[in-house]
Amino acid sequence: MTGNFQTRLKSAASATEAALVRLLTDTPGTHPWPERLLDAMRYAVLGPGKRLRPFLVIESARLFGATGEGVARVAAALECIHCYSLVHDDLPAMDDDDLRRGRPTVHKAYDEATAILAGDALQTLAFAVLADPATDADAAVRLTLISGLATASGAGGMAGGQMLDIVAEKQRLIAEEIRHMQAMKTGALFRYACEAGALLGRASAEKRERLTAFGAEFGLVFQLADDLIDAEGATETAGKATAKDAGRGKATLVGLDGAAAARRELRAAVERAVDILAPFGAHGSVLADAARFAGRRDG
Amino acid sequence: MTGNFQTRLKSAASATEAALVRLLTDTPGTHPWPERLLDAMRYAVLGPGKRLRPFLVIESARLFGATGEGVARVAAALECIHCYSLVHDDLPAMDDDDLRRGRPTVHKAYDEATAILAGDALQTLAFAVLADPATDADAAVRLTLISGLATASGAGGMAGGQMLDIVAEKQRLIAEEIRHMQAMKTGALFRYACEAGALLGRASAEKRERLTAFGAEFGLVFQLADDLIDAEGATETAGKATAKDAGRGKATLVGLDGAAAARRELRAAVERAVDILAPFGAHGSVLADAARFAGRRDG
Repeated sequence: MTGNFQTRLKSAASATEAALVRLLTDTPGTHPWPERLLDAMRYAVLGPGKRLRPFLVIESARLFGATGEGVARVAAALECIHCYSLVHDDLPAMDDDDLRRGRPTVHKAYDEATAILAGDALQTLAFAVLADPATDADAAVRLTLISGLATASGAGGMAGGQMLDIVAEKQRLIAEEIRHMQAMKTGALFRYACEAGALLGRASAEKRERLTAFGAEFGLVFQLADDLIDAEGATETAGKATAKDAGRGKATLVGLDGAAAARRELRAAVERAVDILAPFGAHGSVLADAARFAGRRDG
Repeated sequence: MTGNFQTRLKSAASATEAALVRLLTDTPGTHPWPERLLDAMRYAVLGPGKRLRPFLVIESARLFGATGEGVARVAAALECIHCYSLVHDDLPAMDDDDLRRGRPTVHKAYDEATAILAGDALQTLAFAVLADPATDADAAVRLTLISGLATASGAGGMAGGQMLDIVAEKQRLIAEEIRHMQAMKTGALFRYACEAGALLGRASAEKRERLTAFGAEFGLVFQLADDLIDAEGATETAGKATAKDAGRGKATLVGLDGAAAARRELRAAVERAVDILAPFGAHGSVLADAARFAGRRDG
């Protein structure tokens, strides 16, 4: 079953990357996109990566029988948002990272101005993609996808979580505040990934909520694993500089409660995620394996 | 007639600012928006400003009988995009401006990280607003508004134009390239403003194209006046540091052809803009006055 998960993960990454290449090749509009900007956007989204969020879109959609180009486009749009946030987060004024997935960050490979603009334009591209009829024939579905992505990625979601994360470097947060911050910063996009897939598959409201709940648990698993990797991992394994959270005063549950408690919480979250999928039986096994994988990933 | 224009300009600014205040007060989503981020977003959009782009949305819509909250929301969404671009353009890695409309820029009033995130979240908010049924009851209209804004503001529009502008600091552009860059950087949002208004007013395709053409000429007028102000104006009048374009090696038609040639071209563009509106008779007079005003504004 884990073998099946790895195959599906690779397949989702391929479909997403193919969609991203198409979106960054046949660019729309009357004006050609400036070469340097387009290059930086490609560099930002086409580097190595497991494409976990796109995978969740694609597998959530598949659970309800939806496959194909439209699903891959939504996966690609979400990856554009995720990658824009990485580009901006890596900037000197933010996390000041020179390395991302083993490669120079965008502002290192290009320059800061180009990185800011590439991030901005990737966000715009995500909404352009979702608004296009090629994504879904149903206008109401496209609008729900757009509203959902805006909620998940804006001031009440990812961007807001990043703001709280920065504020937290200067003031000690309690566990509940850290959970809240992480649910916005990391959790919101994972929730959205699963919700969007269910929406594309025309799942019932009850099943869509179930997938959204799974996405939330998945996000928690991912974040706890990420924090544990940072606290314990080596740069070599993680493909990025580690043990930086503590040095920066970043708020994490690992920092607050210790690694043992975080590991217990991680295991509980994986169990909850798997339980949520129980009603789908064997059909849910790939997503369940994904949650298990996210809890023990090494990079 | 100019008196009428000034009244309409103020009225459009009030309606837009009221919409922006509402959008940044009753914020949607399950998570409250972080206070510091919300403050910076408000600071970025609620400072002094003539709100020319919102005015063009509102007056273009009014030409076809559309008024009210939906129109003000589109005007506000466009202003969010315009203001996000100002916040990011002012950053040290971009134009490095400390002053904007007589006030400290966002990264000076807050810090760079907050400015980056506030700009990001303002872009997201713009798309959230357009996707909302409160903006227009017709889903197809909302999707056209979203696609159009993405095209006007993304890599093939505003953000791409800004990239070309930065690249141009290091290589001399010919007049055609400068026009192309400015049509993307500044023109695209003005075009969109008029097109969006016509769309909200359910104008015929022919009339919508006419308004779009007017918006393009308006953008040219605005840009030429802006470049002339920079070359000749005083900081006191412009409310920002001037004579900076030449110092930075910025590509402008004033720099290439001289102020006299730019002034001639500006007058010709105003005339073309006014001529485009001729079929609307007296109904087009406020927009025509706006083009004349943009050609001789002093700040």
